[in-house]
Amino acid sequence: MKGNVIVGQSGGPTAVINSSLAGVFKTAMERGFSKVYGMRYGIQGFLDEQYINMSDYIKTELDLELLKRTPSAFLGTCRYKLPEIHEDKAIYERIFELLDKLDIEVFIYIGGNDSMDTIRKLSDYSLLTGARQKFIGCPKTIDNDLAITDHCPGFGSSAKYIATSTKEILCDAMGFSYKKKNVTIVEIMGRNAGWLTGASALSKSEDCEGPDLIYLPELPFSIEGFVAEIKKLLEKKDVVVAVVSEGIKTEEGKYVCEYAGSNSTDAFGHIQMTGTASYLASVVKNEIGCKTRAIELSTLQRAAAHLASRVDVDEAFNVGGACVKAADEGATGMMVVIDRVSDDPYQSSTGVYDVHRIANGEKVVPRKWINKAGNYVTEEFLDYVRPLIQGHYQPVMVEGLPRHLSIHMKNYDWSAPRGKK
Amino acid sequence: MKGNVIVGQSGGPTAVINSSLAGVFKTAMERGFSKVYGMRYGIQGFLDEQYINMSDYIKTELDLELLKRTPSAFLGTCRYKLPEIHEDKAIYERIFELLDKLDIEVFIYIGGNDSMDTIRKLSDYSLLTGARQKFIGCPKTIDNDLAITDHCPGFGSSAKYIATSTKEILCDAMGFSYKKKNVTIVEIMGRNAGWLTGASALSKSEDCEGPDLIYLPELPFSIEGFVAEIKKLLEKKDVVVAVVSEGIKTEEGKYVCEYAGSNSTDAFGHIQMTGTASYLASVVKNEIGCKTRAIELSTLQRAAAHLASRVDVDEAFNVGGACVKAADEGATGMMVVIDRVSDDPYQSSTGVYDVHRIANGEKVVPRKWINKAGNYVTEEFLDYVRPLIQGHYQPVMVEGLPRHLSIHMKNYDWSAPRGKK
Repeated sequence: MKGNVIVGQSGGPTAVINSSLAGVFKTAMERGFSKVYGMRYGIQGFLDEQYINMSDYIKTELDLELLKRTPSAFLGTCRYKLPEIHEDKAIYERIFELLDKLDIEVFIYIGGNDSMDTIRKLSDYSLLTGARQKFIGCPKTIDNDLAITDHCPGFGSSAKYIATSTKEILCDAMGFSYKKKNVTIVEIMGRNAGWLTGASALSKSEDCEGPDLIYLPELPFSIEGFVAEIKKLLEKKDVVVAVVSEGIKTEEGKYVCEYAGSNSTDAFGHIQMTGTASYLASVVKNEIGCKTRAIELSTLQRAAAHLASRVDVDEAFNVGGACVKAADEGATGMMVVIDRVSDDPYQSSTGVYDVHRIANGEKVVPRKWINKAGNYVTEEFLDYVRPLIQGHYQPVMVEGLPRHLSIHMKNYDWSAPRGKK
Repeated sequence: MKGNVIVGQSGGPTAVINSSLAGVFKTAMERGFSKVYGMRYGIQGFLDEQYINMSDYIKTELDLELLKRTPSAFLGTCRYKLPEIHEDKAIYERIFELLDKLDIEVFIYIGGNDSMDTIRKLSDYSLLTGARQKFIGCPKTIDNDLAITDHCPGFGSSAKYIATSTKEILCDAMGFSYKKKNVTIVEIMGRNAGWLTGASALSKSEDCEGPDLIYLPELPFSIEGFVAEIKKLLEKKDVVVAVVSEGIKTEEGKYVCEYAGSNSTDAFGHIQMTGTASYLASVVKNEIGCKTRAIELSTLQRAAAHLASRVDVDEAFNVGGACVKAADEGATGMMVVIDRVSDDPYQSSTGVYDVHRIANGEKVVPRKWINKAGNYVTEEFLDYVRPLIQGHYQPVMVEGLPRHLSIHMKNYDWSAPRGKK
């Protein structure tokens, strides 16, 4: 009789992070593990003994399908950095005591770079102490900045949402252009890697011009140069749409959003970005005097499960299952990766890779996939991304809205009024 | 042999304004009108003789289906206020000269309150001068603030997008709540009418708590009261989501967004709203000290055709057709309205109504559909809105993205690279 699996979610959520959770659950049950526990709020909640038995929530195949279509972290997530082992052994002792208490054999953590760092530390500790648990990382990040894997689950769906929204924003802007110039600046997530920002160029097609300018955080950004480019474009056309990463920095290494006002930092010391587009829109308005609009896609770009890519949902599910399989076959301290088997037709498969070579490494857009002027992505970039946004996972619609699986509302009172008194 | 029809689009676009355009075109062709002209950029472009022959763009049934699924104004729109007849006769003479030159019998204007004002003036002028043209208004506004009609085409799709996005935003916020309080403030369009803001409450269902607080522009807003409500909620729960209209005003009659900084006004003297949520988030952050996030759904709430409501797309199409039918049967100076025939099951039909009784009248949310505390909508409100968000118009997906009909890109170069050099 096999023991149990525990799975947690960490870092910023995505539209498909729960599809990986569904994959972990399904494969674990099929491979004969006794129970699948879910940590509430990642390792941070787990340290407080916050966990659930997943079977209490996933009782039917429909529940599993709903979970695949539910955005954000079903279990809750955290941004919690484990200390190095030599800095605080007690916390590791505590974690392994809890794991033993729950008869855990397999520990899976769904997350990005910071989460792979957690897997690395826990597997190192288990090797030092001879603990029985296997630790496997399940990649997840809309930013697509994890090393080694061809791409990350979560990225494709965000890219699809961003490209679709960019098309719709362009439609809207084009409709207003008579005898007045207008400039729209769209701000996209991605602190250091411009994968998502570049994905806005997928909107360029037979029925859409695509954005005029795209600025990735990989290259230094010149505010004056930006205004000059827009001025030049406005001589030829009335509607200009520029897409910028939230993380663009000037030559001096200062984030453009820092020019805008106050920002705060999170537990990892990352600056919380906001206001890059608003700031640039105000500069353009002042310098050129035309109508401007700043649009932040905000959390919707990571939460819009209603527009998830089928390739992404399916790959996220498969990657979750592959984590369990890898651990069951004896792997530990590894991350499951996606290998691109072929481009045309697109095919992928999963592999496993030593997490030490992944943790804290950051994959950015290569210089050769950005055009010479530094204000657009190349065709090669688009060829890389395009397969990842294909296909649609039709939401399960109830009363006109997508239905999700929720950990919060197990008992719904049908007789209660749905408005508020 | 019948003469021609001309149709224009005016004011802020919606996700289904082109479905009405498709309805006008189809009915006009079926009823034997010779040509359907489209004004570029409404009456403003028309005055410069900017128009197209719609048949040059809609050549197949598929084109018509794409048009129904294309957000924003296919023809382009304007915000252009005609002077009163006695103020500037010359402009009216110019318009009717152009109409005669194009052998126009029917003039249809798709728009909101300001557009109905245009229909009123043009039909008044035609009655004064005995001109042959019939003038019919086709209602369109996401704001749902037109009088007489049960609701407006465009509203249902925006409501569906807002409710869906609110669900997804709530999923995202709930996932981050461990040991830290967070407050999300979502800003929704609707200057004076809270229909869209209230629609966010549709998200409340078996799998979603819905927002905690909803503030409509119909009632005066107290910044101190708002902070106090949030403080009270944070004592009981970790995640608070408040939805506010862009147009909320304090007791003194000052827009909340005016506290935030500079704003501009458009040709009708309307203040351009921006920054209400950001301002309130900064107040909450200062007063309470918790993590806050401001989200503006921005233009996407009127442009997200990928999530249009089937009821809305179909009604918009029918209303467009009904405009042609009404004019063909001799009506002028009228607006087509939607009558709700039955609630359960939901059924509607079109009627016509004197535009003089509609123009510049504004329908706001009745006080009895807002709860006593003034911070939520009632069940009756939701019963009114719910039928309008039902059903889905599956986008025509090409390479993973919704395909639109575009007036701008008739000749696509297949051999050109789709990135940029």
